[in-house]
Amino acid sequence: MIKVGVLGATGAVGQRFVQLLAHHPWFELSVLTASERSAGKKYRDVVNWRLDVPFPDDFGDIIVSPTTVPAVKKLDLVFSALPAEIATKVEDDISRAGVAVCSNARSHRMSPDVPLVIPEVNPEHLALIDVQKDSGRDGFIVTNPNCSTIMLCMALAPLRVFPFQDVRVATMQAISGAGFEGVPAMAICDNVIPYIGMEEEKMEMESKKIMGTLSGGMVKEASFEVSASCHRVPVIDGHLLAVWVDIDVPLQEVRKAFLSFHAPFSGLPLQPQKSVELMEQPDRPQSRLDRNRGGGMTVTIGRLRKGLRFVALGHNTIRGAAGASVLNAELIRSKKYI
Amino acid sequence: MIKVGVLGATGAVGQRFVQLLAHHPWFELSVLTASERSAGKKYRDVVNWRLDVPFPDDFGDIIVSPTTVPAVKKLDLVFSALPAEIATKVEDDISRAGVAVCSNARSHRMSPDVPLVIPEVNPEHLALIDVQKDSGRDGFIVTNPNCSTIMLCMALAPLRVFPFQDVRVATMQAISGAGFEGVPAMAICDNVIPYIGMEEEKMEMESKKIMGTLSGGMVKEASFEVSASCHRVPVIDGHLLAVWVDIDVPLQEVRKAFLSFHAPFSGLPLQPQKSVELMEQPDRPQSRLDRNRGGGMTVTIGRLRKGLRFVALGHNTIRGAAGASVLNAELIRSKKYI
Amino acid sequence: MIKVGVLGATGAVGQRFVQLLAHHPWFELSVLTASERSAGKKYRDVVNWRLDVPFPDDFGDIIVSPTTVPAVKKLDLVFSALPAEIATKVEDDISRAGVAVCSNARSHRMSPDVPLVIPEVNPEHLALIDVQKDSGRDGFIVTNPNCSTIMLCMALAPLRVFPFQDVRVATMQAISGAGFEGVPAMAICDNVIPYIGMEEEKMEMESKKIMGTLSGGMVKEASFEVSASCHRVPVIDGHLLAVWVDIDVPLQEVRKAFLSFHAPFSGLPLQPQKSVELMEQPDRPQSRLDRNRGGGMTVTIGRLRKGLRFVALGHNTIRGAAGASVLNAELIRSKKYI
Amino acid sequence: MIKVGVLGATGAVGQRFVQLLAHHPWFELSVLTASERSAGKKYRDVVNWRLDVPFPDDFGDIIVSPTTVPAVKKLDLVFSALPAEIATKVEDDISRAGVAVCSNARSHRMSPDVPLVIPEVNPEHLALIDVQKDSGRDGFIVTNPNCSTIMLCMALAPLRVFPFQDVRVATMQAISGAGFEGVPAMAICDNVIPYIGMEEEKMEMESKKIMGTLSGGMVKEASFEVSASCHRVPVIDGHLLAVWVDIDVPLQEVRKAFLSFHAPFSGLPLQPQKSVELMEQPDRPQSRLDRNRGGGMTVTIGRLRKGLRFVALGHNTIRGAAGASVLNAELIRSKKYI
Repeated sequence: MIKVGVLGATGAVGQRFVQLLAHHPWFELSVLTASERSAGKKYRDVVNWRLDVPFPDDFGDIIVSPTTVPAVKKLDLVFSALPAEIATKVEDDISRAGVAVCSNARSHRMSPDVPLVIPEVNPEHLALIDVQKDSGRDGFIVTNPNCSTIMLCMALAPLRVFPFQDVRVATMQAISGAGFEGVPAMAICDNVIPYIGMEEEKMEMESKKIMGTLSGGMVKEASFEVSASCHRVPVIDGHLLAVWVDIDVPLQEVRKAFLSFHAPFSGLPLQPQKSVELMEQPDRPQSRLDRNRGGGMTVTIGRLRKGLRFVALGHNTIRGAAGASVLNAELIRSKKYI
Repeated sequence: MIKVGVLGATGAVGQRFVQLLAHHPWFELSVLTASERSAGKKYRDVVNWRLDVPFPDDFGDIIVSPTTVPAVKKLDLVFSALPAEIATKVEDDISRAGVAVCSNARSHRMSPDVPLVIPEVNPEHLALIDVQKDSGRDGFIVTNPNCSTIMLCMALAPLRVFPFQDVRVATMQAISGAGFEGVPAMAICDNVIPYIGMEEEKMEMESKKIMGTLSGGMVKEASFEVSASCHRVPVIDGHLLAVWVDIDVPLQEVRKAFLSFHAPFSGLPLQPQKSVELMEQPDRPQSRLDRNRGGGMTVTIGRLRKGLRFVALGHNTIRGAAGASVLNAELIRSKKYI
Repeated sequence: MIKVGVLGATGAVGQRFVQLLAHHPWFELSVLTASERSAGKKYRDVVNWRLDVPFPDDFGDIIVSPTTVPAVKKLDLVFSALPAEIATKVEDDISRAGVAVCSNARSHRMSPDVPLVIPEVNPEHLALIDVQKDSGRDGFIVTNPNCSTIMLCMALAPLRVFPFQDVRVATMQAISGAGFEGVPAMAICDNVIPYIGMEEEKMEMESKKIMGTLSGGMVKEASFEVSASCHRVPVIDGHLLAVWVDIDVPLQEVRKAFLSFHAPFSGLPLQPQKSVELMEQPDRPQSRLDRNRGGGMTVTIGRLRKGLRFVALGHNTIRGAAGASVLNAELIRSKKYI
Repeated sequence: MIKVGVLGATGAVGQRFVQLLAHHPWFELSVLTASERSAGKKYRDVVNWRLDVPFPDDFGDIIVSPTTVPAVKKLDLVFSALPAEIATKVEDDISRAGVAVCSNARSHRMSPDVPLVIPEVNPEHLALIDVQKDSGRDGFIVTNPNCSTIMLCMALAPLRVFPFQDVRVATMQAISGAGFEGVPAMAICDNVIPYIGMEEEKMEMESKKIMGTLSGGMVKEASFEVSASCHRVPVIDGHLLAVWVDIDVPLQEVRKAFLSFHAPFSGLPLQPQKSVELMEQPDRPQSRLDRNRGGGMTVTIGRLRKGLRFVALGHNTIRGAAGASVLNAELIRSKKYI
């Protein structure tokens, strides 16, 4: 068993990490960190568990640690659900101390030697780990993209067989994406907010790195351009995207591309049966009904029609955050990086 | 005072008509029609008033009429909130009986001699009324577009000064657009439904007629193409649109175009101070906060950014339905067609 | 394995039955009935699956039967999710044909020889089955109470050790209780509806039968009186009740009564670890966070305070409907009635 | 014109004050205070206007003042929307400086010489102003009750003609009651929270003072007891209450009492046509449809039935907060206290 911990275990993404790791066949969760205020107390006493799955009682008695290097240095790997302003330094320190870091924070995503990975899309980017090692780091950092970027790149991955240059995407994003306290009810009830800070920029930048090509220890950005319009809607979980891609081949070809897409690996515990699933019903996928497909790890495509237009949906705190990071860790393990 | 009536006065749009006409300075509302089941009873006893403005008590004692020619033939004009399957014949019959019909139904929108009008966008299309008259019809039919089409065309009108060919639009539409009973709560709570029957087709067809040019008694369709993706979100009123237009001029020019846009008329009672309003705050317009601007008749633009991308918002049952029809009637009156 | 079927398998409660029976260790589901319109087609093609758990694919190819005696007469037991107006006759016919009926419909609940059972509350009422048999019926009918009545009686069961006469209960009920199409979104978004047809009457009548005493083949109603005020709130699943009971003993006694309450049986497959669970956190139970406790079969109590006041919560379509019926069937089986 | 100001003008209640005072016939609004951070800036630049009525542009250029005595000492009266921890001292200081204070804060509500007033219920309590004056205070403080207490007392006022001792009330309260930032969307979407800190205690204490009798410069508490159970529901505005009162007279008598209730004054600008309105439809009042009756100042009663049970509804930030305070000020003015 790989010894793992969760940095920032009390927040929305932190709780998802604990849920997903509670009975993991490869990873043994033994360290949970939080702010100084919570350190030294039992996890059950400081976490305000707000997921609609039951609290994993076995972990309730773990004494919460501060988010420091000593607290985690005996672990093999930590998952980071830290806010970016804290993550930047701590993740760097921890990785230098010889621990692998799988981070959901944005701090290191765009660093040239840090892989920004979606296992089904660019597993080969993990080779950047060697670049980090070569630079004298004992451990390493691997990041997963921003939640809505993940859904977009998963949806674009099957389409790489066609040439395309322009991607337009309008997102309808869930409130959980902003954390438990992020969106006041007064702000979103009976409302759409057509703005999420830096979200469009993240989608536009990160997708070019993820779908770029690795060569000579560097990622060459993909050449397509993404133009995003991001909106918050009154949905608890699940980001739904309306996507336009300038692909000019018969719809049947595109359908085939989606149907024949498979993950380039198998046997990872969190891997869903279908990473990308095409639904043929005219009114699917829908946020509430389909976000939990594949345990929240499947990205569902629907309404494929000429344009080329389609919609894509994924669970933002599972496939789009904690689950993304855990799947990355599983890939790392299967590739023997740890 | 012009004598007017409302066809289909008990539904969601019908109630909005009654609200808007209750104290209208030009129009005197005296006839309300509904299904046979309701005919002969007092309006207050058959309407299930569900607007959040108080019921207009003065109209409660009106005896509801059946939706027939005799019931309205003494009126100058009727507003139609009928479902399309009923509207097709009844509106035709009523207009042949010498009564003007301002209809929110889709039945006659695409008929070559029926104006499909947004007063601020294509008032000159009213000249088709003469084509109808020439064909021996005593009255006439004027239609307003589908709700989301109105918001789109209002947003595009100021941009006609630039050349553009491609419009992409993702809508986030309110549940009231489907009528009071149209969307079950179980279908939309905590959910997005990425499909509204025929909505995308309506937006794509109607906008080309509205923004087309009238010549020789016929409308020549505009040449641009709209590619729409329509979604229902858990919002009560207000359609929000994310729009891309292939305009390649400096943003400042586009901003100027929005700011300098004015209705080509003035003095209509329902006309808002600004038909199209540009908001500069980074997170506006928002559905709940801005749908009532200009009494629900203003279309608000925001998030103008290169791409060219922006969002547009309007109240779907006021500017997008009943208010659209009443404003058409006011324009018709000011142009002396009645 | 007991051969079972579901009557009315396409509706909200019908789908829950299929979900709960899909992998049941005792019951083998082979017949699904629906209206004539759906009969003869595959279940997957006629059901509009709207639960947020995945569709049970194994049952998708079952050819839907009409809701008739011949369709189910070879089964040991059927679960009924029929509307009352259909259930009255069909359930009677089926039970006379020798099939056991576990019904969620209200049709036969108050019939003197039909047990109205909550396994944890009045399992002994199953003895009425013998009364039915004695009257010449080959099969029998067992009913479960109305959803909000179940939550109330589960909450009152531990308190039977104290004398009480007056119960007041204000309910905050989920929209799923009215079926998928029952509540229009326009009716309930941003709203509370302080009225649910016949719900208060059901709570007031049914609870007296359930908690009554069986003697001489008849149920003598309990003597307490329930005064209910029922409200629909914008919640998808989960009925929350604010309850007052005129019990005048120290709170600590009441707490003990809740904590020491146990189901008078064990080993039933759908039985939760705790049938009634007392939460001590000041702001729990909450509808979304706690409705799925015990797989949706636990009724959670909270905010116990002098008055005597407390709140109770349960999942209305699981513990309050399909799960109630399945647990009844499990009890029936364990008692060897089938 | 009476010169007035608003303390804490940027929050949810503060914005309501500005809305209600913007065009008030008696009061001239000239001072808006907020925290030090906002002081010195234009109101339009520091307020995040989130009401769904348009921002009152005329007041946008007012330079926000700090919440201090000098900022308001030239005014006749200030309205306080301050949080309690700030209000305690500032309101005291301001009233000693000779300014009348109408406060929505809880700080001074239970002070023996401070009137806790609902104009329709206990206008005579204003006589406590003289007690304050006698104790050497130049100005005075008048408070309005907590929002849900107001709805309850308005509903009980017509029933004072009958003897009653026990009141039970279950509230279904809107999220705006906690301020714009008070309730995270993740906490309340698809949920009921059966707890609002100190709300039950406020209802139980304040109602006894409000409905108490003034004698010898002191309020003798009413003798009835209130037992409250308070719940937050996903509603934007409007508190709905299910009420039980132990009144044992024919329903028709109670109905008459509600119908014949009138405010003991007339001509106050904010006073609605009916302070308490009885609706006879079986499913009214409803939060969204009826909260705006009487401009948000009417408390609507419905579902009157034996028990004695009924529901009551009022707009929590208008009748329950800012409007309550303004109506108090209007009463004060009409009684010549200022």
